[in-house]
Amino acid sequence: MPRTVFFHETGGPEVLRVEEAPAQPPGPGEVQIRVEAIGLNRAECMLREGIYHEQPVFPSRIGYEAAGVVEAVGEGVTGVSEGTRIATVPSFALSQTRQGVYGESATVPAEIVRPYPAALSPAEGASLWMAYLTAHGALVHYGRIGPEDAVVVTAASSSVGIAAIQIARARGASVIATTRRAGKKAVLAGHGADHVVATEEEDLPARVMEITGGAGARVIFDPVAGPLLTTLCGACAPYGTIYEYGALHPGETVYPLMSMLAKSLTITGYQVLDFVRDEARFAAARDDIFAGLESGALKPVIDREFPLEEIADAHRYMESNAQCGKIVVTV
Amino acid sequence: MPRTVFFHETGGPEVLRVEEAPAQPPGPGEVQIRVEAIGLNRAECMLREGIYHEQPVFPSRIGYEAAGVVEAVGEGVTGVSEGTRIATVPSFALSQTRQGVYGESATVPAEIVRPYPAALSPAEGASLWMAYLTAHGALVHYGRIGPEDAVVVTAASSSVGIAAIQIARARGASVIATTRRAGKKAVLAGHGADHVVATEEEDLPARVMEITGGAGARVIFDPVAGPLLTTLCGACAPYGTIYEYGALHPGETVYPLMSMLAKSLTITGYQVLDFVRDEARFAAARDDIFAGLESGALKPVIDREFPLEEIADAHRYMESNAQCGKIVVTV
Repeated sequence: MPRTVFFHETGGPEVLRVEEAPAQPPGPGEVQIRVEAIGLNRAECMLREGIYHEQPVFPSRIGYEAAGVVEAVGEGVTGVSEGTRIATVPSFALSQTRQGVYGESATVPAEIVRPYPAALSPAEGASLWMAYLTAHGALVHYGRIGPEDAVVVTAASSSVGIAAIQIARARGASVIATTRRAGKKAVLAGHGADHVVATEEEDLPARVMEITGGAGARVIFDPVAGPLLTTLCGACAPYGTIYEYGALHPGETVYPLMSMLAKSLTITGYQVLDFVRDEARFAAARDDIFAGLESGALKPVIDREFPLEEIADAHRYMESNAQCGKIVVTV
Repeated sequence: MPRTVFFHETGGPEVLRVEEAPAQPPGPGEVQIRVEAIGLNRAECMLREGIYHEQPVFPSRIGYEAAGVVEAVGEGVTGVSEGTRIATVPSFALSQTRQGVYGESATVPAEIVRPYPAALSPAEGASLWMAYLTAHGALVHYGRIGPEDAVVVTAASSSVGIAAIQIARARGASVIATTRRAGKKAVLAGHGADHVVATEEEDLPARVMEITGGAGARVIFDPVAGPLLTTLCGACAPYGTIYEYGALHPGETVYPLMSMLAKSLTITGYQVLDFVRDEARFAAARDDIFAGLESGALKPVIDREFPLEEIADAHRYMESNAQCGKIVVTV
């Protein structure tokens, strides 16, 4: 029987267990996948801890993102067939707790599986959609960044952060990446950041103003919030926009009203799960991402691979924040 | 000598004093106005208390908004001449503390005086620009409201709130006005609100969802912030925008991150002083406002008039929040 990751209570990485479970034959509108690689995301840590918008139902599966091969298609499924190499796209249509993809076999809604470029390995395929769609939706679809813009990317060593650096650079923007401490500066510069600022060691607004000749950043892309949001307002250009796409800071976030008024700033809450609901938006982003992969402007960065039986260690590693790029579990 | 309002220390309304001071001959780029009516705004209470972005220099003048007649023009001034009926437009070019318009005579930058429709009285002229430009900039220029939209206007009994009700209604939007207690409901409905919700007595998100058939308000226009901001997120439609244009709540405002993410909401800081800096934006708003005044869709609502010597009482009255419309001092 295929090995599958389950958890039976909320908690730390130790609650994740690899168990054997029968493969689920695909129901109407579903496909069954032989999983080759799994991409890890913060959303899974949140589900595991019971703080995600979906609550786990025990025994709970887990996982959003996988690359693999279609093994069977359910009734009414069109456009995808057995043997196709696919990866899963982030979507509200997937219930992590019922259909989570951490395992050797997964059965998911057909609408969330999409082919990925043949030149990519399964590990790269599992590192593709969440990172590039998240960054592309905010920076290109909403933010419409271009060569005139300075863009600040916070938590830049995450897979989404690195995708954002690559996408912003491909659009000709000046990219200022942030990381908490200086240790990751060289590797982020190597991934295309024009400037890297260590937020615990440098004054971010002062550095951004220096880099931009006093103009500030027109677009800021941040998954942290908390006190960093007030700092980001100081780095933002008048009329600039801060896209908040996560809630990594565990506590409350103050709304910096006076800065917002003084500089006519905008803060927008943004979720890729919502962005991809519109097929036209998805298709435009996908085409642009595929073109970037083809040209080499975009390239998934894999930090480290773990075998399936080390899934708890893989989660521990993600939560250590030591990574720079995607953490992948190969199956 | 013309009577002028000064204050010599920050504090409550009692610090305002009517004193005689020589009229200031206009310098280069300035005009001298014989003031006929003064419109009161919260910005003046904030200056008086020392919490405005401009700090008072003592003895300090005060006041942004007046209607009157040009008495003298300084060197280099074009486009305005002696005898023209004008009102002042909110602008960063005016220093309240040096050039404040509370008095029988005021000398201000020529760029901030604009003719107003002949059909309006001076009291109406002094009730025009701040209210209608503030509401127009947010709702029409940025918000692009139309007949499909539900718009929530908070603090609706202020002069800006009533202007917002009228502008939203003129654009065909469904207008939900809020006030703290039920006492003002009838008068706000009389000024054109389709629905009025008393926020201290009713559940605003529930009422807005009921009124909009579960859709929520696409645009919300709020000068309060504080805990109300979280409530407003509950009333907002997915992808909706909340324009924050003031800071009436004295304490900190929490950024409602989870609501922002769940509904992809946007909060934009908005200041009319900034909006009017762009002459094309100003002209477009002015033309639309004048057309609305002409058609009768827009009409300044004056709550109460005070004589100049009762300026402290006029400020007390503004801070009592008993008004519904503009408070005007006639000279």
